[in-house]
Amino acid sequence: MDTIIIDGTAIARGVRESVTRDVDAFVSRTGTRPGLATVLVGDDPASQVYVRNKRRQAASAGIADFHRHLDAEATAADIDGEIDRLAADTAVSGILLQLPLPEGIDSSSSIERIPWFKDVDGLTTTSVGLLARGRPGLQPCTPSGVITLLDAAGIDLAGREAVVVGRSELVGRPVAQMLQARNATVTVVHSRTRNAQAIMRRADILVVAAGVPHLVGRDDVAEGAAVIDVGIHRGTAGLIGDVRFDELLGHAGYLTPVPGGVGPMTIAELLRNTLKAAELAPTSG
Amino acid sequence: MDTIIIDGTAIARGVRESVTRDVDAFVSRTGTRPGLATVLVGDDPASQVYVRNKRRQAASAGIADFHRHLDAEATAADIDGEIDRLAADTAVSGILLQLPLPEGIDSSSSIERIPWFKDVDGLTTTSVGLLARGRPGLQPCTPSGVITLLDAAGIDLAGREAVVVGRSELVGRPVAQMLQARNATVTVVHSRTRNAQAIMRRADILVVAAGVPHLVGRDDVAEGAAVIDVGIHRGTAGLIGDVRFDELLGHAGYLTPVPGGVGPMTIAELLRNTLKAAELAPTSG
Repeated sequence: MDTIIIDGTAIARGVRESVTRDVDAFVSRTGTRPGLATVLVGDDPASQVYVRNKRRQAASAGIADFHRHLDAEATAADIDGEIDRLAADTAVSGILLQLPLPEGIDSSSSIERIPWFKDVDGLTTTSVGLLARGRPGLQPCTPSGVITLLDAAGIDLAGREAVVVGRSELVGRPVAQMLQARNATVTVVHSRTRNAQAIMRRADILVVAAGVPHLVGRDDVAEGAAVIDVGIHRGTAGLIGDVRFDELLGHAGYLTPVPGGVGPMTIAELLRNTLKAAELAPTSG
Repeated sequence: MDTIIIDGTAIARGVRESVTRDVDAFVSRTGTRPGLATVLVGDDPASQVYVRNKRRQAASAGIADFHRHLDAEATAADIDGEIDRLAADTAVSGILLQLPLPEGIDSSSSIERIPWFKDVDGLTTTSVGLLARGRPGLQPCTPSGVITLLDAAGIDLAGREAVVVGRSELVGRPVAQMLQARNATVTVVHSRTRNAQAIMRRADILVVAAGVPHLVGRDDVAEGAAVIDVGIHRGTAGLIGDVRFDELLGHAGYLTPVPGGVGPMTIAELLRNTLKAAELAPTSG
């Protein structure tokens, strides 16, 4: 069968364009501009690249930039103080604490200081609870990107069997909840699962977020299934995913490439969350 | 095959005895006694019975009683004020707001005022988030009771296929998370699921929390499966569950009756949560 390649680069561009228009409309309507605070601690080169990309794309969507760079010797108290200031600043719609923090600093207590309505990474316990309860809030970006890709490809979710491979806090758990909220029948496969292959083969929609390079191949996938590859690993011949892409060509119904699949969605969803955060902000007074 | 009937009445008694011993030990160790505040609003006869049972069993486990009865004309502000006073009272370990509230009063904003470490029903957004994240906190009582029954029957969960029928906030969603935390491979079946029968038949462990009398019968269950019936309905011939019990005798490997299965576990787990809340309480100062 013909496999439809889901073009994350193009879909992410569409999301960014739509957010840019909506930011314009927000500015016209409210006289204020959504703002994103990125907090970078230390000098990790990869983190510097990620933060730079986030800031550049945010600026290009018309989102105001509030960058804070703390040096590698910053204490937990320094980080908490910065977050508290940003939390109190009404010009800041969203706060993103770039992870990982330097060794020896626990990120979770700092993250918990971010108010839920500014939590554009969707990582606080309150955001996790709101997602689990199906209440309005900010949802993590990569899982949101997975749903956006499925929607953009016109893949029906309601009533269909979705299998999520991986149960991480960042991707597997939230994407399972989002699929269920969209009325899919969801099974989560993980390292302790027996007969994982038989379970993956049941999937109409297979989301692979195992963090294991080239884990999933043709024998793991039903013909015609939609396969979303969340993995990203540096291989000898460039970036590779959790899925053996070449094996699934002509077998899967829909397939995301790596790179150019889920990857570009994360920042696009971050921009969307920042606008949403601006809309969620409690009105003053 | 012989079906082992899981005796919830006996298992709940064992939990209560164990909590009673642990409360004694807590009192000896700390010089303080765990306390449960039950807040009843209005005169709903069923709610009065439930609250009376909870208070009686708590007292019998050595837990101090802090009952508050507001009349049916109480406003949301009255209820919130009562909860805030109980939240501030260090003698109160756990707060239970009996639902439903009188018509026209939204319970969720009152519930959110309960501090997470006193939320013995596990209903606040923070408690839901802590459960989803696998962090220490208070988990809802009925789903905890399901896990306790499975454990008491010696049913292995890790790596096995568990199917949860129903995705309610009170039971389906949390029990699915608890089963996954115990390393089961979990699928949630709901009203929009296609081929529900085929999916239920995959289950090694089937938890039925659909709220539909006699929904599940022999054709829906694999031979030898463990079946936990969370439903409870008043039928013409007494209480019945979501499962057609008689059909599963000689077919299921393990089966809970209604009444006498999950039902008695809820209050037993409430007592356990109250003790746990006393242990979670921030130390003064």
